[in-house]
Amino acid sequence: MLENTLLDELHEECGVFGVFGCHGAAEITYFGLHSLQHRGQEGAGIVACDNGSMKRIKGQGLVTEVFKEGSLDKLPGDMAIGHVRYSTAGGSSIENVQPFLFNHHTGPFALCHNGNLVNSNELKKFCEDRGSLFQSTSDSEILAHLIQKNYNDRTFIYSLKSALEMLDGAFAFLVMLGDKLIAARDKYGLRPLSIGKINGGYVVSSETCAFEVINAKFVRDVNPGEVVEISKDGIKSTYYSNMNKHHMCAMEYIYFSRPDSELEGRNVHAFRKASGKLLYKEMPTKADIVIGVPDSSLSAAIGYAEESKIPYEMGLIKNKYVGRTFIQPSQAMREKGVRMKLSAVSSIIKGKRVILIDDSIVRGTTSKRIVALLREAGAKEVHVRISSPQITNPCFYGVDISTYDELISARLDLEGVREYIGADSLYFLSKEALFEAAERNDLCLACFTGKYPTALYHAVKDANKDGKF
Amino acid sequence: MLENTLLDELHEECGVFGVFGCHGAAEITYFGLHSLQHRGQEGAGIVACDNGSMKRIKGQGLVTEVFKEGSLDKLPGDMAIGHVRYSTAGGSSIENVQPFLFNHHTGPFALCHNGNLVNSNELKKFCEDRGSLFQSTSDSEILAHLIQKNYNDRTFIYSLKSALEMLDGAFAFLVMLGDKLIAARDKYGLRPLSIGKINGGYVVSSETCAFEVINAKFVRDVNPGEVVEISKDGIKSTYYSNMNKHHMCAMEYIYFSRPDSELEGRNVHAFRKASGKLLYKEMPTKADIVIGVPDSSLSAAIGYAEESKIPYEMGLIKNKYVGRTFIQPSQAMREKGVRMKLSAVSSIIKGKRVILIDDSIVRGTTSKRIVALLREAGAKEVHVRISSPQITNPCFYGVDISTYDELISARLDLEGVREYIGADSLYFLSKEALFEAAERNDLCLACFTGKYPTALYHAVKDANKDGKF
Amino acid sequence: MLENTLLDELHEECGVFGVFGCHGAAEITYFGLHSLQHRGQEGAGIVACDNGSMKRIKGQGLVTEVFKEGSLDKLPGDMAIGHVRYSTAGGSSIENVQPFLFNHHTGPFALCHNGNLVNSNELKKFCEDRGSLFQSTSDSEILAHLIQKNYNDRTFIYSLKSALEMLDGAFAFLVMLGDKLIAARDKYGLRPLSIGKINGGYVVSSETCAFEVINAKFVRDVNPGEVVEISKDGIKSTYYSNMNKHHMCAMEYIYFSRPDSELEGRNVHAFRKASGKLLYKEMPTKADIVIGVPDSSLSAAIGYAEESKIPYEMGLIKNKYVGRTFIQPSQAMREKGVRMKLSAVSSIIKGKRVILIDDSIVRGTTSKRIVALLREAGAKEVHVRISSPQITNPCFYGVDISTYDELISARLDLEGVREYIGADSLYFLSKEALFEAAERNDLCLACFTGKYPTALYHAVKDANKDGKF
Amino acid sequence: MLENTLLDELHEECGVFGVFGCHGAAEITYFGLHSLQHRGQEGAGIVACDNGSMKRIKGQGLVTEVFKEGSLDKLPGDMAIGHVRYSTAGGSSIENVQPFLFNHHTGPFALCHNGNLVNSNELKKFCEDRGSLFQSTSDSEILAHLIQKNYNDRTFIYSLKSALEMLDGAFAFLVMLGDKLIAARDKYGLRPLSIGKINGGYVVSSETCAFEVINAKFVRDVNPGEVVEISKDGIKSTYYSNMNKHHMCAMEYIYFSRPDSELEGRNVHAFRKASGKLLYKEMPTKADIVIGVPDSSLSAAIGYAEESKIPYEMGLIKNKYVGRTFIQPSQAMREKGVRMKLSAVSSIIKGKRVILIDDSIVRGTTSKRIVALLREAGAKEVHVRISSPQITNPCFYGVDISTYDELISARLDLEGVREYIGADSLYFLSKEALFEAAERNDLCLACFTGKYPTALYHAVKDANKDGKF
Repeated sequence: MLENTLLDELHEECGVFGVFGCHGAAEITYFGLHSLQHRGQEGAGIVACDNGSMKRIKGQGLVTEVFKEGSLDKLPGDMAIGHVRYSTAGGSSIENVQPFLFNHHTGPFALCHNGNLVNSNELKKFCEDRGSLFQSTSDSEILAHLIQKNYNDRTFIYSLKSALEMLDGAFAFLVMLGDKLIAARDKYGLRPLSIGKINGGYVVSSETCAFEVINAKFVRDVNPGEVVEISKDGIKSTYYSNMNKHHMCAMEYIYFSRPDSELEGRNVHAFRKASGKLLYKEMPTKADIVIGVPDSSLSAAIGYAEESKIPYEMGLIKNKYVGRTFIQPSQAMREKGVRMKLSAVSSIIKGKRVILIDDSIVRGTTSKRIVALLREAGAKEVHVRISSPQITNPCFYGVDISTYDELISARLDLEGVREYIGADSLYFLSKEALFEAAERNDLCLACFTGKYPTALYHAVKDANKDGKF
Repeated sequence: MLENTLLDELHEECGVFGVFGCHGAAEITYFGLHSLQHRGQEGAGIVACDNGSMKRIKGQGLVTEVFKEGSLDKLPGDMAIGHVRYSTAGGSSIENVQPFLFNHHTGPFALCHNGNLVNSNELKKFCEDRGSLFQSTSDSEILAHLIQKNYNDRTFIYSLKSALEMLDGAFAFLVMLGDKLIAARDKYGLRPLSIGKINGGYVVSSETCAFEVINAKFVRDVNPGEVVEISKDGIKSTYYSNMNKHHMCAMEYIYFSRPDSELEGRNVHAFRKASGKLLYKEMPTKADIVIGVPDSSLSAAIGYAEESKIPYEMGLIKNKYVGRTFIQPSQAMREKGVRMKLSAVSSIIKGKRVILIDDSIVRGTTSKRIVALLREAGAKEVHVRISSPQITNPCFYGVDISTYDELISARLDLEGVREYIGADSLYFLSKEALFEAAERNDLCLACFTGKYPTALYHAVKDANKDGKF
Repeated sequence: MLENTLLDELHEECGVFGVFGCHGAAEITYFGLHSLQHRGQEGAGIVACDNGSMKRIKGQGLVTEVFKEGSLDKLPGDMAIGHVRYSTAGGSSIENVQPFLFNHHTGPFALCHNGNLVNSNELKKFCEDRGSLFQSTSDSEILAHLIQKNYNDRTFIYSLKSALEMLDGAFAFLVMLGDKLIAARDKYGLRPLSIGKINGGYVVSSETCAFEVINAKFVRDVNPGEVVEISKDGIKSTYYSNMNKHHMCAMEYIYFSRPDSELEGRNVHAFRKASGKLLYKEMPTKADIVIGVPDSSLSAAIGYAEESKIPYEMGLIKNKYVGRTFIQPSQAMREKGVRMKLSAVSSIIKGKRVILIDDSIVRGTTSKRIVALLREAGAKEVHVRISSPQITNPCFYGVDISTYDELISARLDLEGVREYIGADSLYFLSKEALFEAAERNDLCLACFTGKYPTALYHAVKDANKDGKF
Repeated sequence: MLENTLLDELHEECGVFGVFGCHGAAEITYFGLHSLQHRGQEGAGIVACDNGSMKRIKGQGLVTEVFKEGSLDKLPGDMAIGHVRYSTAGGSSIENVQPFLFNHHTGPFALCHNGNLVNSNELKKFCEDRGSLFQSTSDSEILAHLIQKNYNDRTFIYSLKSALEMLDGAFAFLVMLGDKLIAARDKYGLRPLSIGKINGGYVVSSETCAFEVINAKFVRDVNPGEVVEISKDGIKSTYYSNMNKHHMCAMEYIYFSRPDSELEGRNVHAFRKASGKLLYKEMPTKADIVIGVPDSSLSAAIGYAEESKIPYEMGLIKNKYVGRTFIQPSQAMREKGVRMKLSAVSSIIKGKRVILIDDSIVRGTTSKRIVALLREAGAKEVHVRISSPQITNPCFYGVDISTYDELISARLDLEGVREYIGADSLYFLSKEALFEAAERNDLCLACFTGKYPTALYHAVKDANKDGKF
């Protein structure tokens, strides 16, 4: 991370990808994970299954750093699951990189997970009290232990479903047995998970953008509460819970997902462009140019420009070579105002009334910085338009805004935020507009409203204990 | 490189950056080079000068890979020069990574270079016949030897200017002596080089985008044929040639430079947007959406959309995590149509008449591939619009299109190219439009016209000898 | 590994080292592990405990490769345990690198292990049937699960001792709790484990050679069946079994341990030198020079020379830079007889009658090779003297001779072995001489005699199943 | 380096190896360099020549670190030269790693070098005054420039010999042209260089130990002043000087060379063993055990023991895993007396009168340390016997003792040195004994006597200027 202000970003916790019944499953998974790389850059792993025998490669860093020439040859088989991981500072150790692989005497199994459990501490204690030993600090290991606790003489699937019922929170799980790939999604549908078809086999992915890359065809989404078993007998669907709802995380549309993904039938770029149009409609403003903060706000900016007829310009340039290992500017450089990630283009901005489109304001420091950049570059006016409502509550479902000391909108009113970031005017999109842009009316808006779809007692308690929330 | 078709890209040969009179010169150079990274990703180096003593770090890879935490501490001093290098396959060895550093008994000197000499073979032989030993295959080492041949009892500057006079081709040189930073630009002005000011000192950079990052203020461009000496006495300007012309490489505007750079007074994004507008004006076409090939054609696409009132869409998504070490898809994957770099967004494209904006067509393979991608994604019509004229001639000034087996436009007429790439229609921007977009009438258009600004006898002979050209 | 014949070596499975009550415990452990490096070169790890909180660094390779400048700063605390690992080809993955670390809700604990369990499969199934999930294929993880199975409302030590009672085989365990370091040794005393004192604190090590390096003073050996608890209250000793015997593995004296270690009171070099003397006494032979196979047979050769008055010479030179990453000679090179590890010194050997001292013969291929080397170098006669008896049985206690397809001495009689290796004469030391050299009469000689100190039913069955034994 | 006292070692500057006329020349060179690794561990490189075209791989570190799986495939051809480099701290940059490779328009040539020139500053200035540009600080680059200065219309060999005539100092050069391998040795014969034969081709090596490894047969040594050309016409011998003498560096016998090398007909181990015997004869001493400092003093200790009938023991153990990247003990550890490289074996030493054999005393700090180690381990008496005379003068021929602030024997008399190192008695071998052990009477003993075989004016001046000598 470069500068404090750049820490002021939302992060998701992971992406999962699986293949069943397709030669070179590990290679397909590699390409699939690569297109899910935006969901996590801290670690990656693949477990491949060859005639019931499983092998794993995992490591810290990007997919292209973990897997080298020759790596995939060591992962033979026609079934595989893989994972890309984002993690907060404390938990980036190699133990937490998924998938997990267990070589049980009844046969090996592997699993990986996108999302966050709100009752993980209770479940972990529950398992440990019954003799479990955890080797990671990852939520995902919990499911494996719960399955074992429920196993006994039942079938694996029965045990899995019993275990899933105990989980509170957001998840998309992939579980691989020697002859079967299982995909499960939480009963609130908070995290996306989709099924595709690829010559004779199946793929499962956090986002549909991965299907395009490997030339797979979208089949359908996994439903909330559904457990999908993919085996040589085809797809079998059952439900671990009858209390299912569609509460897809709104941030998946607003920020996390890739523009070319379809989230439960709605294209992400189309959503964002529509939200940009609505942003203008809700608060029409006169200006000379429209600028989006790259990369996630460009679609909304394009929509805003189209609706407002104000020209869309590239007033901010993002250095695409900012890597994970960047040397931080020294104090002296910082005082000189060195900025590594974003540059404002003076010749475009000078003397202009600028509409600045961003997708969200978390702490406010980034927005403050960008507004200042634009003013230094000569902007006459800067009108900040945010393509989502004010974030006033932490998230417990995999978005790491429970780790911020403060959400600026939880402390300040609209005018206070405007003043802090130094904009001439500020507007946040309405909740209604989100539903309209998403063409649905059932998103999880907990971070905007505080109405959490799941029980939260313990997570809240923990957040307080750590001085968060 | 991923797939053969992806080799079908233009490449520039380098970027240079220098600092005089500023504490932490190496660190400033690091940040400067980082914003010139798009000009070369194969290698990078910095030489810093501390009280007349010079130290160097260089290596293969990105700036962020070559320099690690602690590297810059080993490069003290308030003067430095640095280089990012692009190179063709054969020449990527560490010897060719610049800057060059010579520890002569009269004092050390260092130099680096962006561009390409057309009489390098003659000059190299000239030097070797006079006892020189070359350790690299880089053009840039030639200048150092020529300076020494001319040195004798003259001043260094006199020798440098005599040497520069012998060079034919494109160049922007930085030369560092123990107490002086010298910047020189070829007399045709083919490659850009600009001077900036930063607290008490000076910076010199291939592109002005580097000034923004380090908070330097643009002062002026180095003129064609000019030799600028920066010392504690300030800036001193002389000319090594009186026959100076402005023939900035048009490809710098069209493709190479970063959108936020100003090239001899004209912003690159503004140029590209204007060229997009002209592209529509010259050949108005009815369509449903406008799509640009990311990243270099987005500005032109935005301009086209603005002029035509056809909506601008993100119909192609580029995976921003494609790194240098990517595992190539196996033959089996290739047959499955796996594609790593670009994805078409079906939900946006399906059933639409698409205007596809690209900046150039070299071999035609990439264009063919993208058109096919769009058709697979359901495009009803694909109209390809190129924001530059047809490339019919190789370049000898640093753009590596002398290494392509064939330029499709040198072999086929417009209709032939259209047919090859599979577009419904195809149009190339006129030369006149380039001048209009650049707001000047003196660009080097040699690759479009075959009219080279410099003598070329030997380069052409060599190109033929190698079976090129 | 370089050549097939070089695989013909004995290997031990590990070394352990622990520190209690000494500032900079991780650093002390680093130096301790470094002097145990000969016991395992495949992986290394350290867990340090700081006020009850544990951190780990582990990796594949040598101690000096796993731990880099700055690594130890990340492992604060005054208690630590560490491990160096040797592993067979199949099991060298990072999961198996120790110590294991478990973050249980009752507090973290870590453990590591030298040795091999003969009932690991049964114990693993026992645990899995009771809900355990194993993440490694290492024997050492079993103890952790067994402890948990026995835990309930008992004390940790009670559970540990119950668990140790279930283990059959050879082991030296270190277990670290938040406030306590525990050392345990199998009831047969097969693997060594010693306690030392270092300013105010304690250290525990597989071999005493580590004490010398860190300037610790030897206190005493851990006894067979003993469980030593080291805490701020000092050392507390109890036993998990009353059926204790002293059956130190003879190979520890003969081959594995460093010459400067004291194994249960007997210096290893002194043992080896004495065995060399006895080798001459048992079978006096006339010759011109005595040569030892470096490094492990040099002590015996010195003893042989001293006793026989035949000059000791350096007739074989070992290249000390043979690393783990050596490029294997191509087929062409192999045919040319390229040899990387050992060279014979012609000028010393030519025309001489040579006594060649080696510590053991496993497959016979190495001995055959060395005899050939000596003959090529001009030896007139080669008399091979082995400072241990014939190995006729596999080991199940941590020496990887269960993985050899064949033990030459299990198939051939003495004359047959002599003929195979091409020696003029061959003699193996008697079992009685081993006892005499060790100044004790209670070593484990199972690989020489087939009399195993522990129950073996399952290990033998497994060995057969895998086509071994 | 671990501790200051460990810097107190002699270092040589390099080893060279070449192959002519043998398929897989680079691979042979790799194995050859590997057995010369003891002559330099800082860097390594190979240039291979395939039909007149040369390719190079070089890097910092051990041969096994620089060359990885697949490296040698990139160096095709049946001719190659290679180099291992030792360097002092200031000069370990990649530019100085050899061989040097020059792509001249008359054809490429490569060269590498073992030794040190005493007139390098003069020669460098001579070349620079005539237009040369040096890119390294290595002496070896000088020869290349001198050749070019003399080239003109003469043959390469004529130019080479003219250039060699200008060199003062110690050298063994390998020069590779497109069709020829040239080996040259200084006219004093200070550094060794030998020729061997390998199926159909030739090899040249700094030491004969490399021949054994690749199964080559020794042919003869290159003579002082000789220039050997190896081409498809066989071996051609001429001399660049008629004033040739045999003054092999005595330290090659005493310390640098591998025990299995033959230096001008005398085996190194045999020399050392003989020197050990003479050490006893010259000063018979009563004691209980003889100990050598590993590894270079073991041969002498064996000889001493044989002559004196005092038992030879392994009282000092060297950790063979001390690598280049070792973490230095912290101040706290150092105070605890942590020692990484050498351990004394108490059980062997306790209560004994010890004869300690070492090959030389430079600064005295190491000897002082070892004597202290032995006393701590319980030695009753420590009698230090050095198998060479007192070093009273710096070396300018490649042994880096010109960089030591002080040579203890230049400052103190015998009793003073004894007192400093804390020995009960101290004795240095006589010069006459060196001749006797070497079976020759013409070694260079300059560091013992101050009688330098070459002109020294400038080297001495420089040494003074730098505060040395």
